[in-house]
Amino acid sequence: VGSFDESVGIVWLDRDPATLPALGPSVRWVQLPGAGVDRWLDRIRRAPHVQFTSAGGVYARPVAEHAVGLLLAGVRGLVHAARTNCWDRDSAAHRYNLEGSTVAVVGAGAIGALVIELLGPFRVETIAVTKSGRDVPGAGRNLASDRVPEIWGIADHVVLCAPSTTHTRWLVGEAELAQLRPHSWVVNVARGSLVATEAVLTALRDGVIGGCALDVVDPEPLSAGHPLWNEPHALITPHVAARPLAAESRDFAARVEANLVLLMSGRAPLSPVDTGSGY
Amino acid sequence: VGSFDESVGIVWLDRDPATLPALGPSVRWVQLPGAGVDRWLDRIRRAPHVQFTSAGGVYARPVAEHAVGLLLAGVRGLVHAARTNCWDRDSAAHRYNLEGSTVAVVGAGAIGALVIELLGPFRVETIAVTKSGRDVPGAGRNLASDRVPEIWGIADHVVLCAPSTTHTRWLVGEAELAQLRPHSWVVNVARGSLVATEAVLTALRDGVIGGCALDVVDPEPLSAGHPLWNEPHALITPHVAARPLAAESRDFAARVEANLVLLMSGRAPLSPVDTGSGY
Repeated sequence: VGSFDESVGIVWLDRDPATLPALGPSVRWVQLPGAGVDRWLDRIRRAPHVQFTSAGGVYARPVAEHAVGLLLAGVRGLVHAARTNCWDRDSAAHRYNLEGSTVAVVGAGAIGALVIELLGPFRVETIAVTKSGRDVPGAGRNLASDRVPEIWGIADHVVLCAPSTTHTRWLVGEAELAQLRPHSWVVNVARGSLVATEAVLTALRDGVIGGCALDVVDPEPLSAGHPLWNEPHALITPHVAARPLAAESRDFAARVEANLVLLMSGRAPLSPVDTGSGY
Repeated sequence: VGSFDESVGIVWLDRDPATLPALGPSVRWVQLPGAGVDRWLDRIRRAPHVQFTSAGGVYARPVAEHAVGLLLAGVRGLVHAARTNCWDRDSAAHRYNLEGSTVAVVGAGAIGALVIELLGPFRVETIAVTKSGRDVPGAGRNLASDRVPEIWGIADHVVLCAPSTTHTRWLVGEAELAQLRPHSWVVNVARGSLVATEAVLTALRDGVIGGCALDVVDPEPLSAGHPLWNEPHALITPHVAARPLAAESRDFAARVEANLVLLMSGRAPLSPVDTGSGY
């Protein structure tokens, strides 16, 4: 990447769209650092002459790993234990196993499919929700996204891996939480907009669900002093599931190289951004 | 189980050996509630006419699940996050994935073998340590227990699943910890005696290892005010990996039934206690 006035391709490592300079007429390709592009859509639409590619799939494995870690930390009482300074064997937090539970994975793209793969040996029943309801390897059931209202009554736990779109905004609100169970954990590694923050806070306080483990929140960053920080049944990680960052990620470097080769030979790049669908 | 004076078989649900009454001459079998029997050996040796059986294997799955949960919670910074009340994206706690790391599983009996099975899809290199060094399904390498000194220099993380014996006492001490790395997590779901508590505390304070996640400690319970409770890189769960307890466990009930059938037909029961080996 040389001077921006003469660049043809740009690999951008900062996740803040505001940091990207104006794109001159020579620019034909911009590789974005993240998998989610919702915050970049304005920039992308203002540069119709440029092919943008996301890092979709590059962080699937760390994010899926984070999701399973959050789920286990919640279900097995590790969140409670981390905040307890005494030998509290009788806590209800330590009553549950993941084994035998039903886990709904909403959005089974690269990340959700891997969550299902990682959960494979845990003897859980998984429900994969995708747009089409196609068969996701390893999933116990497959549902199309128009049937997502069915999952709240049958899932013990829900892992959110769906992209942020107008359809997924506030996917988890008061009505959905009310159908879950007092031991249910809600894990979000997708986008904060999928969960109505105030509704989940109320559900936690009322014991409607067992807890929530959120790597993403709405709005982000979660403000200092926000009540979620002090909610005993909430675990917040600061949007760190997709680590290491692009600049340190071998998988990201490999993606850049692959896209460079594809574009230079006139072929379609990996994870081209479709401003229509928003991901 | 009727009156103790006339009982032939006793199913004991309390994990405290002191609660078990004296065993009359009619008693031929006692089913203990837990998998580890180290604290019962005195009682067992004082009743040589009685066949004791442990619940060995019954809790393997919940304990293995707990071990993987502890490992992920440590490696992915969830312990740090649970104790942090602000959006701290730059913390070093969020730099690591489990993927690509080498995990030594010390003791690959029922629990350790399952830990290796659960880690199967996580793309980690596992080293199984067993007495004989036999092939453990899914393990990347197999080592006999006399080669355990080799693991500290090559493992990123160590999961302890070995029984408590004279050979495993203080298996993890100052010299072993010194060979691990600043990002290494030590997970113990076996017995507290395997880890020299003071040595691990010093290692944590000096940044010699990344952290420890201990479901068992020495001595137990960990006393109120013990410095481990306030150590930022330590997660303590109060010996709860094997949940639900025997009284609520379908797997334990199934074991009791199986042993009853075996013993009544004159066959060897499952998990007979061998006071020679101590497990």
